Amino acid sequence: MRRLEVIGLENLGEVRRGDSIARLILKGCSHNNVALTEGDILVVAHKIVSKSEGRIVRLAEIQPSAHALELSRELNDKDPRLLQIILSESRRIIRKGGGTIIVESHHGFVCANAGVDLSNVGLGMVALLPQDPDRSAREIREEIQKLSGVAIGVIISDSFGRPWRLGTVDVAVGVSGLKPLKDERGRNDRYGYELKASVAAVADELAAAAEPVMGKRGEVPVAIIRGDGVEIKEEDGSVKDLLRPEAEDLFRHF
Amino acid sequence: MRRLEVIGLENLGEVRRGDSIARLILKGCSHNNVALTEGDILVVAHKIVSKSEGRIVRLAEIQPSAHALELSRELNDKDPRLLQIILSESRRIIRKGGGTIIVESHHGFVCANAGVDLSNVGLGMVALLPQDPDRSAREIREEIQKLSGVAIGVIISDSFGRPWRLGTVDVAVGVSGLKPLKDERGRNDRYGYELKASVAAVADELAAAAEPVMGKRGEVPVAIIRGDGVEIKEEDGSVKDLLRPEAEDLFRHF
Repeated sequence: MRRLEVIGLENLGEVRRGDSIARLILKGCSHNNVALTEGDILVVAHKIVSKSEGRIVRLAEIQPSAHALELSRELNDKDPRLLQIILSESRRIIRKGGGTIIVESHHGFVCANAGVDLSNVGLGMVALLPQDPDRSAREIREEIQKLSGVAIGVIISDSFGRPWRLGTVDVAVGVSGLKPLKDERGRNDRYGYELKASVAAVADELAAAAEPVMGKRGEVPVAIIRGDGVEIKEEDGSVKDLLRPEAEDLFRHF
Repeated sequence: MRRLEVIGLENLGEVRRGDSIARLILKGCSHNNVALTEGDILVVAHKIVSKSEGRIVRLAEIQPSAHALELSRELNDKDPRLLQIILSESRRIIRKGGGTIIVESHHGFVCANAGVDLSNVGLGMVALLPQDPDRSAREIREEIQKLSGVAIGVIISDSFGRPWRLGTVDVAVGVSGLKPLKDERGRNDRYGYELKASVAAVADELAAAAEPVMGKRGEVPVAIIRGDGVEIKEEDGSVKDLLRPEAEDLFRHF
């Protein structure tokens, strides 16, 4: 029987700049009485990675530019200091309206607010996405392998909105030790039809699978996923494999 | 410890028009030696629902209209009969280019091909989405409850592409017995910050969680999800709760 399991790690404690997420996870495993096994994929909320990397900004220290102030007037008085940070984290604005700003982040993610987020960081503070989330994932994976001897994969996740559907769904913003896309094109279905569009964004699906267990209040910042359909690779993998090339994108330019 | 489990049901056999999906699932449970328990959510691939409802069309029987033929020339000679079916399933075209056509289906889903799909139905055949997938989900839920006495929730799923990211992710196209959105707005995080954007599209996340177990080849058309973060409701729920109202949508009109 095909079976997949998601296990949340709770009570990992407050994360401070410089903390090792790998050590935190291993300590959390022993607190939570769960052992990592070869082939597990860890989904890690970007928030704790951002904290460990010092990607936290105090709003009171931000001086908004003229552009940020102008955007604020345009976007229902959205905090101009927040907009200033969003602009610094972005290559360009894709779309704006209401109190919403959709940008392309320096990583290439098209998302609201460049992933900049006010929850679970402390009042008056915001968390930026890690500068290079693939590298962050790789560091966690390599350190866990070094400390525990267990080969795992790592997905760093964030909650993204979607254009036509309400609510957020967690997606991968960094990966290491897995292929984010599962390409079944060229295989046949049971009727002999050759699958032509069957590329599943499995890293995004696993990030989404972890969310019901992790929740939004920061109490379960890591989940272990194991079982069928969960596959690690020795090669590193990159979240860039999930980014649709601009030239093929029908919703980037208008 | 918070934990969620996804269990695939295999070898359910070929589905024919008029078959009861509820009976098929209950038979599948006993074949697969798994018992449904109160509170389980079943993710059902829309394909078997479409088959049971006769929403299967033979391409050879379709006469493409002038509009479909014109679209075909525009879209790299995409099959004009397929385009004809897509047009019949759509309210309007949102965007087109390359060999891709993004429409708003009669259900209100913005997606490629109006969800019309060539895989796992037989050569020369296409599957349409169920006409009213919420109703399909409700019928399955009510029949399972009647036959087995067990209260469950049902999500009917399909694989959708995304505008800025490659690969498909499974989403809910119909729900019954659950709230598709989990609204945590108004609750505080650990720092006292009031969560303002924390609405998770949990029905979509559970559909996504099932995909690694179900795959794309039709062999595992149903998955049972149980555990933390999986919550059923007596009231019915509707996938319409997941549709972003047109007026708030930045990516509908250009």
